[in-house]
Parts: sequence; structure tokens; C-alpha cells
Amino acid sequence: MSTSKEYKPKKIALAYSGGLDTSFCVAYYTREIGAEVHAAFCDTGGFSRDDIKELEQRALAFGAKSFIALDGKQAVVDQVVRHLIAGNVRRGATYPMCVAAERAIQAKLVIEHALKIGADAIAQGSTGAGNDQIRFEVAIRALAPDIVPLAPVRDLGLTREDEVTKLESWKLADKLPKNAKKEYSINRGLWGATIGGKETTTSDKPLPDHAYVLTTSPAKAPDSPQTVRLTFDAGIPVAIDGKKLGAVELIEKLEKMAGAHGVGRGMHLGDTIIGIKGRVAYEAPAAEVLLIAHRELEKLVLTRQQQRTKDSLAAAYGDMVHEGQFFDPAARNIEAFFDATQKVVSGDVDVELFKGVARVLGVSSPYSMMAASGARYGEKIAGYTPRDAAGFVAILGNSARITAVARKGGTK
Amino acid sequence: MSTSKEYKPKKIALAYSGGLDTSFCVAYYTREIGAEVHAAFCDTGGFSRDDIKELEQRALAFGAKSFIALDGKQAVVDQVVRHLIAGNVRRGATYPMCVAAERAIQAKLVIEHALKIGADAIAQGSTGAGNDQIRFEVAIRALAPDIVPLAPVRDLGLTREDEVTKLESWKLADKLPKNAKKEYSINRGLWGATIGGKETTTSDKPLPDHAYVLTTSPAKAPDSPQTVRLTFDAGIPVAIDGKKLGAVELIEKLEKMAGAHGVGRGMHLGDTIIGIKGRVAYEAPAAEVLLIAHRELEKLVLTRQQQRTKDSLAAAYGDMVHEGQFFDPAARNIEAFFDATQKVVSGDVDVELFKGVARVLGVSSPYSMMAASGARYGEKIAGYTPRDAAGFVAILGNSARITAVARKGGTK
Amino acid sequence: MSTSKEYKPKKIALAYSGGLDTSFCVAYYTREIGAEVHAAFCDTGGFSRDDIKELEQRALAFGAKSFIALDGKQAVVDQVVRHLIAGNVRRGATYPMCVAAERAIQAKLVIEHALKIGADAIAQGSTGAGNDQIRFEVAIRALAPDIVPLAPVRDLGLTREDEVTKLESWKLADKLPKNAKKEYSINRGLWGATIGGKETTTSDKPLPDHAYVLTTSPAKAPDSPQTVRLTFDAGIPVAIDGKKLGAVELIEKLEKMAGAHGVGRGMHLGDTIIGIKGRVAYEAPAAEVLLIAHRELEKLVLTRQQQRTKDSLAAAYGDMVHEGQFFDPAARNIEAFFDATQKVVSGDVDVELFKGVARVLGVSSPYSMMAASGARYGEKIAGYTPRDAAGFVAILGNSARITAVARKGGTK
Amino acid sequence: MSTSKEYKPKKIALAYSGGLDTSFCVAYYTREIGAEVHAAFCDTGGFSRDDIKELEQRALAFGAKSFIALDGKQAVVDQVVRHLIAGNVRRGATYPMCVAAERAIQAKLVIEHALKIGADAIAQGSTGAGNDQIRFEVAIRALAPDIVPLAPVRDLGLTREDEVTKLESWKLADKLPKNAKKEYSINRGLWGATIGGKETTTSDKPLPDHAYVLTTSPAKAPDSPQTVRLTFDAGIPVAIDGKKLGAVELIEKLEKMAGAHGVGRGMHLGDTIIGIKGRVAYEAPAAEVLLIAHRELEKLVLTRQQQRTKDSLAAAYGDMVHEGQFFDPAARNIEAFFDATQKVVSGDVDVELFKGVARVLGVSSPYSMMAASGARYGEKIAGYTPRDAAGFVAILGNSARITAVARKGGTK
Repeated sequence: MSTSKEYKPKKIALAYSGGLDTSFCVAYYTREIGAEVHAAFCDTGGFSRDDIKELEQRALAFGAKSFIALDGKQAVVDQVVRHLIAGNVRRGATYPMCVAAERAIQAKLVIEHALKIGADAIAQGSTGAGNDQIRFEVAIRALAPDIVPLAPVRDLGLTREDEVTKLESWKLADKLPKNAKKEYSINRGLWGATIGGKETTTSDKPLPDHAYVLTTSPAKAPDSPQTVRLTFDAGIPVAIDGKKLGAVELIEKLEKMAGAHGVGRGMHLGDTIIGIKGRVAYEAPAAEVLLIAHRELEKLVLTRQQQRTKDSLAAAYGDMVHEGQFFDPAARNIEAFFDATQKVVSGDVDVELFKGVARVLGVSSPYSMMAASGARYGEKIAGYTPRDAAGFVAILGNSARITAVARKGGTK
Repeated sequence: MSTSKEYKPKKIALAYSGGLDTSFCVAYYTREIGAEVHAAFCDTGGFSRDDIKELEQRALAFGAKSFIALDGKQAVVDQVVRHLIAGNVRRGATYPMCVAAERAIQAKLVIEHALKIGADAIAQGSTGAGNDQIRFEVAIRALAPDIVPLAPVRDLGLTREDEVTKLESWKLADKLPKNAKKEYSINRGLWGATIGGKETTTSDKPLPDHAYVLTTSPAKAPDSPQTVRLTFDAGIPVAIDGKKLGAVELIEKLEKMAGAHGVGRGMHLGDTIIGIKGRVAYEAPAAEVLLIAHRELEKLVLTRQQQRTKDSLAAAYGDMVHEGQFFDPAARNIEAFFDATQKVVSGDVDVELFKGVARVLGVSSPYSMMAASGARYGEKIAGYTPRDAAGFVAILGNSARITAVARKGGTK
Repeated sequence: MSTSKEYKPKKIALAYSGGLDTSFCVAYYTREIGAEVHAAFCDTGGFSRDDIKELEQRALAFGAKSFIALDGKQAVVDQVVRHLIAGNVRRGATYPMCVAAERAIQAKLVIEHALKIGADAIAQGSTGAGNDQIRFEVAIRALAPDIVPLAPVRDLGLTREDEVTKLESWKLADKLPKNAKKEYSINRGLWGATIGGKETTTSDKPLPDHAYVLTTSPAKAPDSPQTVRLTFDAGIPVAIDGKKLGAVELIEKLEKMAGAHGVGRGMHLGDTIIGIKGRVAYEAPAAEVLLIAHRELEKLVLTRQQQRTKDSLAAAYGDMVHEGQFFDPAARNIEAFFDATQKVVSGDVDVELFKGVARVLGVSSPYSMMAASGARYGEKIAGYTPRDAAGFVAILGNSARITAVARKGGTK
Repeated sequence: MSTSKEYKPKKIALAYSGGLDTSFCVAYYTREIGAEVHAAFCDTGGFSRDDIKELEQRALAFGAKSFIALDGKQAVVDQVVRHLIAGNVRRGATYPMCVAAERAIQAKLVIEHALKIGADAIAQGSTGAGNDQIRFEVAIRALAPDIVPLAPVRDLGLTREDEVTKLESWKLADKLPKNAKKEYSINRGLWGATIGGKETTTSDKPLPDHAYVLTTSPAKAPDSPQTVRLTFDAGIPVAIDGKKLGAVELIEKLEKMAGAHGVGRGMHLGDTIIGIKGRVAYEAPAAEVLLIAHRELEKLVLTRQQQRTKDSLAAAYGDMVHEGQFFDPAARNIEAFFDATQKVVSGDVDVELFKGVARVLGVSSPYSMMAASGARYGEKIAGYTPRDAAGFVAILGNSARITAVARKGGTK
């Protein structure tokens, strides 16, 4: 029941991206298996109306019975990115998880479409060499456990050459996008882009400048810095330079602004779900700016304990998102925690963009704990006396004193 | 017994820095209390031979019976910085804890000196408004619980003006360093410098360029990037561009190289030990480069579980170092863990320095897990078959399926 | 401003317990300071109507201008105990934190009363040797930062003898309860009792049987076990043996049932807020049964990830409750997390009570993940095939294989 | 390469237990595949010399070319149990992981034997329905990545009936142990026994008394308690009632003593590696006593921070041991941490055994922090003054005050 070889589907919802693999799926299931294929494309950013029109034409040309474009951008923000910002979540302390943020929503919307049209199977174009197969198939088990997951490219053990040969035999190969065999493999969406290939297959070389698609090279970025004021309301970015924007628009606008300064490039070397190390370049100008801005604002308004507790959950949440466990109820529970913390995360953050870097210049908030203290660190006491401080140390050091006595000054 | 008012010391070891506060301490205890004062200056970086000569002369001029300069640089590396690198430790995900890294060693060496000379009290110049009073006094309780800690400036509730007035009455005011009342308060050491004052007393403004002391302004940094190759051996940086260096020299050289490119500036807004929010600017060019280089190298050679476990301890370790609990045995225990993980953290890291940013270009190691896998993420499978991957997902998704069934597809 | 010596109060709300310390406070403030004292007693369990009447008479006799009895039992359950159950929270893996659970609510209700009557100060009877002074005074800062906290027994450095002498001088000593100098100091409330004194001042001896106040000695408990069925609804205990009960009544009834079997005795040796080790005996029959029952039910209905995440927060929450940080907003945030997890924690738990032990016999739930799996561990597979299992291991072991290759089979 | 179907082994090291599954493996590989089978039995407790002799005869009778009995008891203690005690490790806060503690060592010793004899494959008798297949096969990948793991019962999809039919066809069925089809499936070893079957396949019923194999029923246990004194040296149990014993002997003796009082029975309901919930009864009298004794001793000698950090690692370590990741280097790193903490965990613990329960009566240690403090909780202050306590609260409550002000007393 669990592999594409063993199950004969009748009505398939296909997670369609328009590339070689999913286009092959359309043809394969309609021609070789005799199943109905309903192509569902989920737009999570980076696609124009024309792009989508082209996808539709291709899906139908390859034999799909229907095509639907599902707009996932708002859902990506509301259900994933919002929490990634709230949790200051990155993988390996750097990568904002551009891809994983979208996959959960793409899977969800395609599965919902499958349930709506009464599909008995959901197909996707993943191979066995990546994370997406797992994200997608675990999602199906979580959201539609009665629908059979199919991954024919993986399960039939096909290479890209195998697929092209098959498509040629069906006179479909020339209907593929021209750039099907690009130098780099790019995944672009609302929360950023990833770029893999050549240099990323080993660990020691950077990507050449021309491989990047969203950002200006830091070396060629403007010689003058630009300052942006971001406004947050309860943890959600709501305005740029005082102008209110919906979150999707705000992210798209910020991507352009920060990308022009070369901000957001990085390299992610990390552990994949399948147990190997993987390396990929990324460009996430908006994510970079929003994550550092939000984090600094939190430092002003959250208590130490709130921040420590948040940090301890962020890693777990990030792993769930990245590793295909987004639909585990534990993720919902952590989101409830994040939401509870964000009530006071409101205020302005000034960020300077310059030559590849975003730098927080300052933060302010109606809930500022710095303003509320009445004190100035290192300079002015408030709320206690110097004598209180001596007492504080005496008791804070009590355990140290007792440890020294108990261990006889030894080094144990 | 716990405050300076209540105890009459006879022989005092004074943690001497040469500034107003500790110079006042020398005079106060010799003239008002009639105690012997032995000034101990601990050099943890940033001081020349002449600087130290000047400190000695001042201490003696103010009445100290002896002066000693303790070299703490190697100890800072061996006992603190090494572990901060091993643990990838920063506070608030940014600040490398330049000051705290030194305070532990300064306290330790001064306390050891006090024990050696048979002092009955250890004095320091802290006020009640900062973290250092706590770091120092907790350390005394941990390392010399029978010696009385004194902090007269705090315990007598003195302002800077009070101190100057007293010194004037003793005809000592003119022996103070001329820059005693500087625009910014600077703390400089091996692991970086901090800069406080004016803009840092509120949260919304950056520091002006002229306030920085170690780094070139990013805007004025060279227009061409420089690439540095760092070599690590078992977690410790041992060479720059192939040239072997002791850790102290390596850090000092790297500070110059990276500082020239404006690398390592930052602003730390965080929770102080005394419960208020504090903000301080910092410059840590060497720390910045070493921390990002080490972290990326670890991603190549450590298992996922090793990294997760390390991350979970790094926060605790950082809090201990920053918040005056460095001498709690738990810190030694975590260091034992860090040491155990670093055995394979050996290899080269190429870092590009440009306009205020350090960027890792690539990493390589004889223990590379990326090279050892035989696979290429997203492209080539090794060690398992596509059929295995289908099986993996089936079982990995088992809990998701069961959850869906148990909760009846509900949203609970 | 922060100690009782330095502030002259006018209208005091006093957290009144009826014992020597708080009775002294009434007399001291009315007679020596000339302040109005309004005694507020907060009942968090274990007091009869007559007990409270007696407290009122004593407070007034000692000079209080008013007395109020605040019923805190429901609030203890709703605001603290409910979360302690949800989080399976114990200190040191044993102690259910009977005292701390109540202190937060006692402080809160007394502070609310103080705000209502317009008091300028809140007094309590704590000495400097325990945790309660800290719980109470931190609560005041959190909930009424403009009201001055007073702890005269601590701040005037009074011993019990000092207090009695003063009361004798005021002809009030004979109005104290007869058992003012008991063999053991007992704190009794809804979530259990603690017993301190004699044997608990060192670490090596147990308490004698006669020191316990709530439970039968296990040795003398019935020779036949009793089975109790507890029903939980969304994490909250709602019925005993099928009979619906409000949580307060349920806890009171269960205390009697389990206490009769000697269940719930224990010894807590742990770290106090003031840095020393403390030891105290406790009796918490209801807490013991509810905590083990709830935990086993959770194992049936929560995912592995939910349980791991809960466990990681339980320790932090427990520390906050125990160490006087209950009013930090982080505690509210964790409660939001707990609440989110409890939606499916519904079902029945059979518990056997016998000779000092409660043992879970079985659990059942409409959300049982064991029933939903279709599989039987070690016997019957469901949702995947044996071939899938082989694939699962291949990929799960991928990292192990790569590690072995990368480290050349070495032991690093 | 990863399943038994696809690989034709020549020389097999077989993890032999003497039961149906592994006896079938001997016959299958020698008769159907024509491979050499070298049976390796690893004794991790609970086997007599005669038992092992019988195993040898059976292995040879079924066709094994050689048989070896590997004594794993000391290794179980030195490499696993020691760390489980040091970490106070249980699964689900109850189960001491009797089975997993042994599996790691069994796998390791059999793999070492396979490497020694030059086997090209290692076979085991696991089905696809349990955890052991995973523990064993991940271990092979970690310790001998070039040897092929075989699990024929799982990979050929055989039922017990299938195996018996085959054995009958080879005239071997009557050579099986008579009790091959027992009412319950029992796994017995040094760290305890597990019992599965009938009642454990659902969640709501306990096991009947007669199913237990190591412990007296609490109801039938002696009516008088017995007190045992356990001595620990650096975290390792070294004596019972003052008599020094090697750890293996000590555990065996303690199992008898505590088992006679019905101590150590429990039920483990938890998450298996394969994603389903599993339930199993266990008897672990020695583990129960040692774990509670060690934990209470630690409370006396470790600092708060040491305990918190240990707790945070114990869960991770337990998961690694239980879930087949014992050979991940992260486990070695955590063991280095545990070792570092245990230096002062020396002293005596008195434990009372009575009617199914072990209860710690008292603890003492030369490193007692309770004795070293000079204070008595709630009664006597040492190392600080009451005035210090007031100061401590003032600063500890600083954040609470500031939070209240910053959030305007709101409930955010």
C-alpha cells in the first residue's frame, strides 16, 4: 500500500510544479496506468499570472483532466512564516528554511483539493534523494490517512534520462520548458529562494555571483546605506517606513528593497531528513531583515524567562517544520505558546541595509522594559539600593560558598 | 559580614584597573581605614607594557603597598574562550560576551593572588548598577569563601563626584588619568571591546562611527574583499592562512585583519543580572570570525544529535559565564561535554571579509560527513535504495496516521 | 524603600495566618508604628469554619482594624494545580510542590485585597530563612509595584523569643494559640501538607510515623487494595468512580481515600531560592494519585513530540512556581502551551491504592493512539510492510554509517 | 543491499537467542542458502551455565558451524547501566529501559565477533513489528558499515507458523524448546525483565500476578519492612549494607532482596521507534532501588545548576539508548558530561523495602551541601544576613516590577 508500484490509482490529485518530474507523472498515469490526473499547482510566491497560465497549458497538454492553481501565499504567512518570525526560527542558526515553510502549505492545499474531488491517490514528483518526498508523504498520512501517497519517480527508480526517453516515446518531450536542464536547481517562494548544484555538492566552494536570482551582489550593491523602519504589531510585521501593508505584500516589497542591497545571501549546510549532510545556497532578503528586526524588538519587551523558554522551543519547532513533522499536534501547541508571547511584541525597528548586510540600528516599543525600569545599566540604580545589591550577591553566591565548603576547595 | 561598611579589613587584595573607582579604593583603604592595599591588575588583552607601567605608578602613588600585573590572556583562551568557541556561545544570538569572558579570569587570578599573600579581604571598584559586582563577588565565594568581599564604591553609596571630592581632599585628584571622564565607557580585552554611554542608555539609536575603537567603519572599509583561511584542530583555531599561531596571537592578528574590514560591530540589548535591560555596543572582530567559522565546520563533521545536544547546553553555559556563575561545577561539566564533541572539529574554513561582514565561503575536514556519505543531496542516493525511502516515510508517517485516526481528523 | 525599617506605613494589608509571626505583626504595627492593620487570611485548604472564626477573633484581639477570609481553593485549582497536573510537574521528580502551589494564590488574593482597600503597604510574617519571603515579595512587585512590601520579622531580625517578649509586654502572649511551639512545623493546604523539624534539619533520618498528619502509616494501611477510577476531561480530573465532582471536592475526597492507604508520603530534599539545600517531609495523597494517573493517560493520547516538548517545559514551569516567579509572563505562556496539549487528555484511569502506593492498572480514552494504530507492538504490523521496516532502518542508520566512514571507524 | 532477499551471504554471524526465530535462521541459511552460520549468544543476565550449554547444543543441531557464548554482563554495567544510573534515566518517568540497556551491548559484542571471524553478514531473528530490528541494524551500520545486516524473518515476511512448517520439513521442529509458545513473551536480563502479551496488547488492564517472574506480589510480600544501605562511590553502587560488591553481583543481589518485597513492578506505555504506542509490563527491582537511591544522593551533593543540566540531557540520552542511537557519538559526549558530574556522588543511602515499594529514608555524603551550608532551612541563616535577604528579593523582583510597569499592569 505504501509504494507506487503496488497500487493502481483511479483518480489522482497531482502536486504539479510544471517541471520534468511532475509533467512526467501526468503522462505516466494517464497513458501507462489509465488513471485520471487532476493537476494542482500551489503558488507560494514567485509566480506571475502568465507563469501559471503556462503551467495550466502544459498540464493539460500532457494529459491532465483538470488543472487548478491554489494560492498559498497568505496561508504560508498565516500558518507558517508568522510562527517562524515569532520563534526567531532558523536552521543551523542561519537558514530561514525558505523551502520547508512552503512545503507544508503546498501539501496541505493539494491534499484538501484531493479530498474535495474525491481522489483515491495523491502523486508527487519527488525522487528518493531529498527531503520533499518525506514532507509530502507524512503530510498525507496526517491529513488524509485514507488516500494513497504516490511518488512514481522515486518508486520506479527513474532517472531524468529515463523520464525524457519515456516522454519522447509519447511525443511530449518537446513540450517541456526549455530550461529543464539548468545549471542550478532553484526553488523560489515567498520566504526566499534556494539554489543547488555544482559547488553545493561539496562543502568547500561558494557559489558564483551569477547563480543568485533575487539579490544584487554585495560588491555591486549601492555605496550608500538605506535605512528601513519596520513596524510590528503583536509579533507580525505590519508596516514599512510607516506605510501599512498586508504581510504578503510587505514581504514582497522588503525582498526587493533588501535584495537590492545584497542582503540575505547565505549557505546552508545541514542534516537532511534522510541522514546525509546537504548543502544549498539561499537568498532570503525579507526573511533576514524580519528575523533580526523581530529578535531585537523581543529583547526590549520580553522577560528573560520568556526569551529562554522561547529559544528552547524554537529549535524543536524548526525541526518539525524542516523535517516533515509540521502536522504533528506538538507544532500547534508550540504555536499557541508563541502566540501567547507575542502580545507585547509591538513597536518600531530601524534597520540599515548596506553591502550585503542588514543591521538593526534601534528599537522602540510602548512596552519597552528598558524605558520602564527607571534605571540605566552601569550608571543609575532604580527599584533597589546599593545595599540591596550587596544582599543580592550574598544570597546569589550562597550556593557557590556552600559548594566550596562541601567540596573542601577541591576541584571536583 | 557581607558589606564594606560592616567589616574592617587589614590586608586587602584589590582588583586594580587604574580608573577612578579602583584608584579611589587604594586611597580610601590606606587613608581612612588604615588597611594595607595590594593592587593586582589582571591583563586580559589590550594593554601595552607602558600602559601597565603607568598603572603601577598610579597604584603606588595612591598608597598601594604593592602592585602586581597578572597576565590573564592565555588563561582567558584556555579556560573560557576555547569553550565559548566550542559551544558557539553568544548572548541573544549576537553578542560574544567579550566582557564576561575576561571577568571570570580576572576574578580568579586576583583571588589566587589574595590567597597567596594572605589577604583577609578582596576589594573591587564596582558600583551597584552593573553586572561586574556580582561576577566578582560570587567568584570570591566560590574560590575563597573565607575571604571577605568588599565593594566600597557600592556599599558606601558613592557617586563619581563623591570620589573626586575625597581624592581632592587627599591631594590625589590630579594623579588620575586625564580621560577619566570620557564620552563613552570602554572595556577592551582579548575577546573584544564594549562601548557604553549616551545612545546606549536608550534603545532606539545607534552609536556614531567615532565611538568605535577597534574597527573601521564598514562604509570606509576596503572596496575589495579579503579571504582568510582559518584552520581548526579539535575545535581550537591553530592557523591563519596556513601559518600556525598560538591562540592568543591568532586572536590578536585576526582582530586586526577583520577589524580593518569593519567586521564584528554589534549592539547587545539584553537582560542584566540585576533584572534590568541593558544595552551596549561591542566590537569583536576576532570573535565574530571564529564563531561563524567554527560553527560551519561543526555542521560538516558532527552528527545531528551532537549538534542538537550542544545547542541545548550552549545557552546554559553562556548564561553561567555571563551571569557570574562561571565557577559553578556545572560549567566544568558542560566543558567536559564540549571537549568530548570537539575531537573531530578539525579542518579549514575560508572566510571572506568585506564591508563589515564575515561570510564563510567553504569548509573542509578529514572527518567530513558530506564526503563520507557517498551521496549527493537531491541528486544521488547512497547507502539505501528508493524503495527504502518509501519504507522510511511509511514508518516515519505512522504516528501522523495514527494521530489522525485517533483524533478522528479533528483539529484537537 | 525596600525594607521594613526604612518605611513608615499608614494602612497595611497583612497576609494573616494566625500564628506567632503574623499575630506579632498586627500588634507591632498597631502599637509601635501606629498604622492601621487589615488582616487578610487566604484559605487554600485544610481550614474549617470554626478555624477561621478563631483566626478572626485573634486578629481583632491583637488590634487589627479589619479581618477578611479570602477563599483561595478554587483559584489554587484553576490557576495553579490545573497546570501542575497538565505539566506533570514535580520538583526533584518527587515533590508535588504543595506549598508553592498555594503561595502564589495567597499572595495574589491578599494583594488584590490591598489594592481594593487602598493600602500603602503589604506585610507578611516571613523570616529571612525560607522561600516564602521571596515568593510573596516578588508577587507584590509583579502585581502592585507601587505598594511597599514589609517583612518586619525578617527586617528587624527578630527571633521567636523576641516576638514573645514583645507580646508579653503588650499582654497579648496568652492570646496565642497553645500549640505555637510545636514539635514540627506543618503547612497544610489543598495540594498536600509539608512537615518540617528535627529529622528534616539533617539528611539522613526519616520522620517518625506520628509526625504525619494526613496519611495512615503504610504499615497500618488496609491489607486489601482499593481500586479507584479517575476520569479526566481535557486534562482536568472530573470524576471519581464515575461520580462527577468539582475539582476542589474531588481533590478533598481523593486525599481521604488515598491517605487512608498511606499513599502520598515523601521527603523532599532540594535547592531553596536562598541557595541552601532544604529538606522537608510531605504528604500529598491526592496529588500523588492525580499526577501518576494523568501522566499515564497522556502516554496513551499524546504524540511522542508532544510529550517531549511538554517535559522540556514542565521543569521550567515548576521552577517558576517554586521559586517565586509564578507571575512572570513566561508562566502564562507555558500555561497556554499546556492548555493546547490537553484537548485530548480525556478518559479513564484505574488506580490501585495499597500500603502506601498508588499504581496505575490501566488507562482508556476515546483518543487512544494505541487503539487507533491497528497494530500490536511486537506482534502485528499495520500501516506499513516488513519491507518498509527494512527501508526505515536503512535510512535511520544512514547517519550512523556515514559517521563510521567519516571517522574511519575510530573512536572519536 | 539492505534486505535479506537481495543479498546472498556466505559467512554469517548470527545473534542467537535459542528461540524459534533465531533457530529458524540457523536452519534457513545453512539449508536453503548454503551459507556458513556462526551462532553468537550474548549473555546479559539471567542465564545459567546449563542454559547456555543447551543453547549451544541446539545451535549446532540446527546446523551452526560454530557457537560462542559472549559474556556481556560487565559490559552492560560499564557501558550502559552506569550511565543510566548517573543520568537517573527512565523512559516516561517510570521504565528503566531494561531491554534497551542490553541490546546495545548484545549488538556490539556480536558485531565484534563477526568482524573477528570475517563474516560478510550479520543475521538476527527480529520481525518488523518491534524495536529490536532497528537497534540491531543501526548498530551494524555504526560499528561495521561494510557488513550486510540480515533479518530474514522480517524480510521474508514469515509468521511463526511459517517457520514451524519449514522446520518440520527439515525434521527440526521437535528440537525446539517446549515452551516456544508461551502465554507471555519474557525478556530477562541484568537490568530487569519485561513481560508482554494478552493484557499488554490493550491499555486498560493490568497483568495477573502469575505472569511476573522476578518479584513477589506486593500483597504477599513480607509484613515487615527491610532497610538496605547502599553505598555509592562517584556515582557507582559499590556496597550493600557495608559489604563491597562488584556492580554485576551487587545488582544481582539487590534484585533478589528487593524482588522479595515486590519492588520494581511497573507498566510501560510508550512510543516505539516504529511510530506506534506499545505497552509492556516490567520487573526491575534492582534498577528501581538504585535509581531512586542515586537520585536522592545527588540532591544532597550536586548544585542546582548541575541537576538542571543533567536532567536536560537525561531525556536525550534515554531516547538514544531506547531508540537505537546508542552508538551516535552524541551518546559518548553525554556520558563524558555524566562522568564529570559524578565525582562527588559518593555516600550512603538507606532504602526501605516494603510491600512493593522502595522508599529512601535518608542520605549522607562527605560532600553534603546540606551539612556544609551552616544554615537550616526556615530556621537558621548562615552566610548572609536578613538584610541581605531583603536586598536579594528587591533585585530578584526587579524584573517583575519592570514588567508590571512596562505592561501597565495589563494582562499581556
